[in-house]
Amino acid sequence: MTPGPGVARTLLPKKFQASGVNSGVRRYRPDLGILISEIPAVAAGVFTLNECRAAPVLYSKSLLPAGDIRAIITNSGQANSATGRSGIENNFRMAQSTAQTLGCRTDQILTASTGVIGIPLEIEKITQSIPELIDRRGVTAEPFALAILTTDLVPKTVSTEVQLEKGVIRITGIAKGSGMIHPNMATMLGYFLTDAEIPQAIAADFLRTATDLSFNQISVDGESSTNDCAFFMANGASGIPVHSDADCALFQTALNEIAIFLAQSIARDGEGATKLIEVNLHGSPSLELAKKAARGLVMSPLVKTAIHGEDPNWGRILARLGADSVPTTLLDQMTLRLQGTPVFSAGSPLPIDLEQVRRQLKADQVVIDIDLHGGNHSSTAWGCDLSKKYVEINSEYLT
Amino acid sequence: MTPGPGVARTLLPKKFQASGVNSGVRRYRPDLGILISEIPAVAAGVFTLNECRAAPVLYSKSLLPAGDIRAIITNSGQANSATGRSGIENNFRMAQSTAQTLGCRTDQILTASTGVIGIPLEIEKITQSIPELIDRRGVTAEPFALAILTTDLVPKTVSTEVQLEKGVIRITGIAKGSGMIHPNMATMLGYFLTDAEIPQAIAADFLRTATDLSFNQISVDGESSTNDCAFFMANGASGIPVHSDADCALFQTALNEIAIFLAQSIARDGEGATKLIEVNLHGSPSLELAKKAARGLVMSPLVKTAIHGEDPNWGRILARLGADSVPTTLLDQMTLRLQGTPVFSAGSPLPIDLEQVRRQLKADQVVIDIDLHGGNHSSTAWGCDLSKKYVEINSEYLT
Repeated sequence: MTPGPGVARTLLPKKFQASGVNSGVRRYRPDLGILISEIPAVAAGVFTLNECRAAPVLYSKSLLPAGDIRAIITNSGQANSATGRSGIENNFRMAQSTAQTLGCRTDQILTASTGVIGIPLEIEKITQSIPELIDRRGVTAEPFALAILTTDLVPKTVSTEVQLEKGVIRITGIAKGSGMIHPNMATMLGYFLTDAEIPQAIAADFLRTATDLSFNQISVDGESSTNDCAFFMANGASGIPVHSDADCALFQTALNEIAIFLAQSIARDGEGATKLIEVNLHGSPSLELAKKAARGLVMSPLVKTAIHGEDPNWGRILARLGADSVPTTLLDQMTLRLQGTPVFSAGSPLPIDLEQVRRQLKADQVVIDIDLHGGNHSSTAWGCDLSKKYVEINSEYLT
Repeated sequence: MTPGPGVARTLLPKKFQASGVNSGVRRYRPDLGILISEIPAVAAGVFTLNECRAAPVLYSKSLLPAGDIRAIITNSGQANSATGRSGIENNFRMAQSTAQTLGCRTDQILTASTGVIGIPLEIEKITQSIPELIDRRGVTAEPFALAILTTDLVPKTVSTEVQLEKGVIRITGIAKGSGMIHPNMATMLGYFLTDAEIPQAIAADFLRTATDLSFNQISVDGESSTNDCAFFMANGASGIPVHSDADCALFQTALNEIAIFLAQSIARDGEGATKLIEVNLHGSPSLELAKKAARGLVMSPLVKTAIHGEDPNWGRILARLGADSVPTTLLDQMTLRLQGTPVFSAGSPLPIDLEQVRRQLKADQVVIDIDLHGGNHSSTAWGCDLSKKYVEINSEYLT
């Protein structure tokens, strides 16, 4: 895998192009991006479970899965959510204008938006910028990745090549996160592009499996957005099919790795974050409990502030597990490790060198390992610490 | 109602006494308190639903309801939670030592603890201080209310007199909150004392009804503690019975008012809080949805930071309602008011004077009114804003 900017430019799969420009909705930063396939592509999506769904979510969801998608256009700064009937119309104009410029049907264009909820989309600025946006397209992911950021600090792109039976294909992933990041669908904007040939029937499964292991296992603040989507596009431009069981397994593994890499990048770049938190929960009697308990810890303000303060206050971890329905019997037999150091086992605190654990917590990645000794199910979740900067960012977002 | 200190001393009901001392667990502040009834009292309790329950919770829960309780002893600084077998023994010693000094049975003494989870209770310091604690007892609530504080800034006490059929009785309420304040049982320590004569059979109902309307409707940070309890003691010392339906209604109303006053005080004094948030949710098709949606808003970090920043970013309120399962059909017809100003109605944002709403948000109490226009159920919830101070307090709690 080649991580994104700073290391190398992220090359898109064959016959994919990306672009990003400033449309004037935001003052200086790029705020309008597009991903284009030169040829019609198989596409799938997963969308927020929030009952309050933005206009682009309603629109894109209605079109997927599909076999002939040409592009995904995305604006940042205004979420086009809670904008009523005119929001629906503005979103349609964004798709329509893109289709006219590209010379395809409107229902071959997907849309996504991110930004402030409840303010009207400045659609004139957007439609006027679409010709320039498409004109500037190129073969690297970065211009698009930059255009979709809101409070993110770094663009998130990753690309990998996979050797299948008949040859080599490429997968590129791009994501945007930062606030309102919480399990329940895809929790942010995510885009997966590949030049592999993939039957439409299985595209959605590939995407669902990858997002369940990645985007659905991260939390920045427990908030679930009205605009979350993850998209998958496969245009077959490599001429290499994913068809045998072995190919499917190889492709899924590579897609999962890309999705997890992006999910970790999102958690690490959460609003105000200074540390990545990883929770590995083992020995659960059910997968459901494992997921709930692991995600509960990366959501807990008290766990997150303790880690921010490099404070080995592990009692808060126990309290949160108990609040998230881990039964008393399992709490009484579990083992808890902080940065590898066992701190609680068989119902009692273990004698620990507090100063040593405190030093271990200075790392920029904090790992919490839990074994409930109560079954064979496991789950991993990622999150970030809670800092004063989170409060600062979110107290002044609209202003 | 006579609110607590600064206004007047809070007088206890007849034949109740309170005390508080420093046992040496904390450096200077009072850290050990007791509430005593000179005569055996009817008592009931409600306790945390957290699966991780502190030793005093397990102990007190096992004794209630009861007809002959003499005292509740409470320490602060160490929660005696996740402390294993020795925690159970230390808690029992705390009760036993109190019983010996008061000259009663151990099972007539209730216990509660609040503080850091997972560190052993310094029981020797506590038992050595019990004689002095009991020696210093008096007829006002403040010494006890001060001894049970942790990160609270102000002691919370309130007292009221109620005219029943046969005469006047008194009810006194005392509470402690601040962090780990979240619906699911009583979310903090609460104590209700009365000199009314109340049959044991209905004591628990009075307490449950009052806590459901108050302590279970507040949230500081979405965290549910391992030590939460609310206690009710009625010693009958007034000689006035609560027996007719009219008396029961009068008593319940007074108890509810006291509980809501304390719950609001806890929310207002949440860790780092600068504003009290009140959410009134009307027109819900079910009580369950009304409660969930109202509490969800006072838990939401994004709503709480926006209010902290006096930022009329009401889209976050819609997003949170949608995330908490308020159906799209109701979101599309609801009315949302911020400090009385309608900002969203019938699926669309209303034209508002942003600067005016921003000025209204400068108040130290922010009221969010929602009408879903979908039924007859209502719920009110209270919380506080999320400030940098919350992060500061909780990054450095153990250290």
